[in-house]
Amino acid sequence: MTERNFFELLEKAQAKNKSFVCVGLDSECGRIPSHISEDEPMIEFNKAIVDATHDLVCAYKPNRAFYDAMGAMGSVALWNTVAYIKDKYPNIPIILDSKRGDIGNTNRNYAQADFDDIGVDAITAHPYLGSEAMKPFLERENKGIFVLCRTSNKGAGEFQDIEARYQKLPLYQVVAKTVRKDWNFYCNCGLVVGATYPEELAQVREIVGDILILIPGVGQQKGDVEKTVKAGMDSEGGGFIINSSRSIIFASEDEDFAEAARKETDKLRKEINSALGD
Amino acid sequence: MTERNFFELLEKAQAKNKSFVCVGLDSECGRIPSHISEDEPMIEFNKAIVDATHDLVCAYKPNRAFYDAMGAMGSVALWNTVAYIKDKYPNIPIILDSKRGDIGNTNRNYAQADFDDIGVDAITAHPYLGSEAMKPFLERENKGIFVLCRTSNKGAGEFQDIEARYQKLPLYQVVAKTVRKDWNFYCNCGLVVGATYPEELAQVREIVGDILILIPGVGQQKGDVEKTVKAGMDSEGGGFIINSSRSIIFASEDEDFAEAARKETDKLRKEINSALGD
Repeated sequence: MTERNFFELLEKAQAKNKSFVCVGLDSECGRIPSHISEDEPMIEFNKAIVDATHDLVCAYKPNRAFYDAMGAMGSVALWNTVAYIKDKYPNIPIILDSKRGDIGNTNRNYAQADFDDIGVDAITAHPYLGSEAMKPFLERENKGIFVLCRTSNKGAGEFQDIEARYQKLPLYQVVAKTVRKDWNFYCNCGLVVGATYPEELAQVREIVGDILILIPGVGQQKGDVEKTVKAGMDSEGGGFIINSSRSIIFASEDEDFAEAARKETDKLRKEINSALGD
Repeated sequence: MTERNFFELLEKAQAKNKSFVCVGLDSECGRIPSHISEDEPMIEFNKAIVDATHDLVCAYKPNRAFYDAMGAMGSVALWNTVAYIKDKYPNIPIILDSKRGDIGNTNRNYAQADFDDIGVDAITAHPYLGSEAMKPFLERENKGIFVLCRTSNKGAGEFQDIEARYQKLPLYQVVAKTVRKDWNFYCNCGLVVGATYPEELAQVREIVGDILILIPGVGQQKGDVEKTVKAGMDSEGGGFIINSSRSIIFASEDEDFAEAARKETDKLRKEINSALGD
């Protein structure tokens, strides 16, 4: 069996579903509608969301925090969610938002955890330890590694905007440049840039050419979709993924949650496509 | 019941055991001695290591990667290891090396995962998203938050040594200064600085006064103990924790592994104390 390739799957899913939308499965246990009284509410909730949106997305992105918070039950829920998507919708790639970053020997185990045990196609990672430490991720040719560049949170600039003396660029742009030049030897790197900073997003796009950018921060965090698309797309009108989590999966907390999630996903999908001029 | 306080526990354990040694429970499943044929080899291994070393350490530090790599089994092993230490050796604090760092809403769930579900006393964290995002950790007054500053790996300097134009300092020193000045409002922050860089460690000590420094990188990574102690101690000859993982827990891969771990722990303990001039 050939190994799944994140970038091939993504390209095909984007084309087939005419979609740049990634649905973030930040399935916080306490917010799952109370009528889901199964033994495993997170899995049942995720299955319903995925079944309702699979033809409108280019990827799914579970965030590890919401599963780790539930201990062994969360661990099983994450594993089963990924297995379900891969089995039922094998053409949709899965990004695990795990924000990894440790020394090499440890990262070897994190790569095993995320890529081999859970079996996702891509992860997110911190740049702070440098490329040498990140080799266990970077050497996985078929996987995607999204390095944090300019994050979507309010206080993102505290370190990310520090101006580097010799490079004459803010740190987040040095990260963008370095990832493009030195980390991307297998062409499997992407960057994370928040929709809440469209100007910074445009700067990063300028620096990295056609490297894939994962863009969180629309929806709950109020990033503007049209500005984001204009700032984030590459010269061919692609090269990005826009993620929305809470405002899709918790669009309704009633019995119609899956339907409501479908509606929100399609709304975002159309907004993006219309900004692209389709 | 009063909540455990990391800093109080640490101080008492350091005094009682005359020890600055933290044993890193990086219990990689594939390296556990084969005679441990229990259903739950990681837990049995950890219990034996802890039983053999508890009177020689000031803290334990499991690294999440090695548990995440084993899926739900690892999740249970981590939970049970922490529960065992807290129950049997309630005076030894536990640091979870989980290298956290995400936006606020997500960190709220990571704090729940590490502090409430697993129940450790301290964690490690990435500085990249800034203090605003880290509030769910920083607001836990009784917990310890060790922010990565100068890591122990070979390529640590790729971003950490970037010189900040206005601050006229390398990034890792800006991190040290910022954590001291702006993150530490509950006096619950520490920093991570690798033993492999004694000069940088001395610089950080100079900047942060008596803030606690967690120092990995002796043992397998070959940091020099005497240089580390001289560079890392505060003006009162304390304020640091030296962690060693692999060279203690895998000192022997035979039936005498626990005894061998005890021997290595005591050797490191004595080396540190002798460097302190005790």
